[in-house]
Amino acid sequence: MKRVLVLCMEKKITVDVCVSPYLYPVHHRDDAIVVVIDILRATTAMCTAFHYGVEKMIPVATLEEAAEYKKKGFMVGAERNGVALEGFDFGNSPFSYMSEKIVGQTIVISTTNGTQAIEAAKDAHQVVIGAFSNITALCEYLVSQKRSVLLLCSGWKNRFNWEDSIFAGAVTTRLFNAGLHNTGDAAKAMSFLYEQSQKSQIKFIRNSSHAERLAAMGLKKDIKYCFQLDQTTVIPVLEGKYLVKLS
Amino acid sequence: MKRVLVLCMEKKITVDVCVSPYLYPVHHRDDAIVVVIDILRATTAMCTAFHYGVEKMIPVATLEEAAEYKKKGFMVGAERNGVALEGFDFGNSPFSYMSEKIVGQTIVISTTNGTQAIEAAKDAHQVVIGAFSNITALCEYLVSQKRSVLLLCSGWKNRFNWEDSIFAGAVTTRLFNAGLHNTGDAAKAMSFLYEQSQKSQIKFIRNSSHAERLAAMGLKKDIKYCFQLDQTTVIPVLEGKYLVKLS
Repeated sequence: MKRVLVLCMEKKITVDVCVSPYLYPVHHRDDAIVVVIDILRATTAMCTAFHYGVEKMIPVATLEEAAEYKKKGFMVGAERNGVALEGFDFGNSPFSYMSEKIVGQTIVISTTNGTQAIEAAKDAHQVVIGAFSNITALCEYLVSQKRSVLLLCSGWKNRFNWEDSIFAGAVTTRLFNAGLHNTGDAAKAMSFLYEQSQKSQIKFIRNSSHAERLAAMGLKKDIKYCFQLDQTTVIPVLEGKYLVKLS
Repeated sequence: MKRVLVLCMEKKITVDVCVSPYLYPVHHRDDAIVVVIDILRATTAMCTAFHYGVEKMIPVATLEEAAEYKKKGFMVGAERNGVALEGFDFGNSPFSYMSEKIVGQTIVISTTNGTQAIEAAKDAHQVVIGAFSNITALCEYLVSQKRSVLLLCSGWKNRFNWEDSIFAGAVTTRLFNAGLHNTGDAAKAMSFLYEQSQKSQIKFIRNSSHAERLAAMGLKKDIKYCFQLDQTTVIPVLEGKYLVKLS
């Protein structure tokens, strides 16, 4: 703990939260690890896919790119507004990636928010994928790196959303407890939100407009899964255009 | 209350929070009233200036514009990074505007964050100025208008800040209690932050990096004033390039 604190002061390690991909340019710094967050459901689905044996994923921002890859014979996940699009192999339900057919495969994925956030941050020092399903492994990795961390919430169409912000708060709280105290106002606020929301899980989920949207589509099982901690120790990381398992 | 609720459903009146001027284009809607918020200290100072008798203010984003006006003989307030700039008449301390010399005058003002937010939102249906010092008058006006409201936090150099977000939460809570229930995730989160922060005022101010910055500059008196409720019933409103008293 003491050593982390000292390094923190030497290198000016910071922890901050960016609540929208649109706001990323304001937060960019060359030396930071960016954690892309899209709890419902893209980054949870990505963690699940790697846990179940996918070899690589190619996140793409547009459906045109997704369709091009499909033509070339790739398996493709494509989702907009919570709906898996016809003509593709997956949406972004984590359950659709719990399948033997993905083992060893390269899967292309395009979603409403999560893949847009990856696109926004692609020139960062490192981009990793975070979700409640890999939170402990993720936080241990972040602490070990002794670098600044930017928690990038995918949000909903570039707007703030509840569940990504709460997750950013959960990570901030853990990093804070590990000695990384140099946080911006956003990180402090999200950490505070997370801590308060722990007192009332029901109130917390009710505040998420996207959880409401998914529940109305009959996807309560997905919502429940996306809030479960530590389903995997896998951390997907961006290498060039590919997401791969962090080794 | 019932009538407001019905109108709310008919016109799809929404209440939302935008946490940075940089993010304003994502939130813009033609029919909304935008409340510009810069608690420490620009919008508090503007409310104070109008309460003490200023006739008009001209908010300008750049120091070049401020200097041009100064050359033309205007009284000018200019602040960057918490410091009143030399060669101008005021900074953005509310106390500097509690003076007889401003009565009936037109004052130009340029600040680090607040006037940038006004510039970002200038094409909205209406732009009004909000602070704890006019919160009750402001909320009564907003409820009376039966229009969508966007609470625009000036933040700190386009980043989220604590005190503007808490104020946005305070307004959201009041509008919610007046029957305006159609809020986005950001408004819900800021309202939750505000309500929780009321339980611990000290913890709340400690979380504000700008309050820390100002306290280090010996400006605790300013901070205290900026969090006082209802010092005035004046609501400054943008008309063309001028801020004037809402009549």
